[in-house]
Amino acid sequence: MIIKKLADARFKDMPDHEDITKQIVIGPEDGSTEIVLRYFRVAPGGSSPYHRHDFPHLVKLEAGKGVVLDPEGIEHPLVPGDYVYIHDNEPHCFKNTGPEFLEFICIVPVRGEG
Amino acid sequence: MIIKKLADARFKDMPDHEDITKQIVIGPEDGSTEIVLRYFRVAPGGSSPYHRHDFPHLVKLEAGKGVVLDPEGIEHPLVPGDYVYIHDNEPHCFKNTGPEFLEFICIVPVRGEG
Repeated sequence: MIIKKLADARFKDMPDHEDITKQIVIGPEDGSTEIVLRYFRVAPGGSSPYHRHDFPHLVKLEAGKGVVLDPEGIEHPLVPGDYVYIHDNEPHCFKNTGPEFLEFICIVPVRGEG
Repeated sequence: MIIKKLADARFKDMPDHEDITKQIVIGPEDGSTEIVLRYFRVAPGGSSPYHRHDFPHLVKLEAGKGVVLDPEGIEHPLVPGDYVYIHDNEPHCFKNTGPEFLEFICIVPVRGEG
């Protein structure tokens, strides 16, 4: 059993994404061999890449204000407490549209956190 | 892509656990075939069963005050924002020790949500 504060979770570099930080809150280093729970902060004006991949995302908004872009490029507003499920291979990105950091949990199968 | 508020997540019966409610926030009905995200509320004085199973839990405390019992039966205090990883087959339970509902997210591989 591992009990952890967010402040104690390891930061992982995000090359080419200076406006995003990522922490591995629960992952293989904790013994979690199937599922990884990451915590992202996107700076005001920032965005995750509009991309797709062969694994899903389970997301919960924690702080800030933003939008998620769907496969048609349509923006859906998000506020803290909202949950988002992104299917395998579904194009998506998260954009910060507010003045504070956009913060969210993003859970993936272990193959999604290389 | 599915966007959901907690209030819109389906409740699932918890037979023999009148002091606990469970919602399936993201799961197979949303197309999530690998990972399930559930939301639990434990009433004041209530507790989840002290049990073990062959799948892990990734937990984040959302509200209230409680403890998690480890395999030695030792109580570890938890406050909102704390994360807990329970390994496969590790005995555990969550107890509400405060005056409000204890609320937490609990993520499992799909085999853990039968």
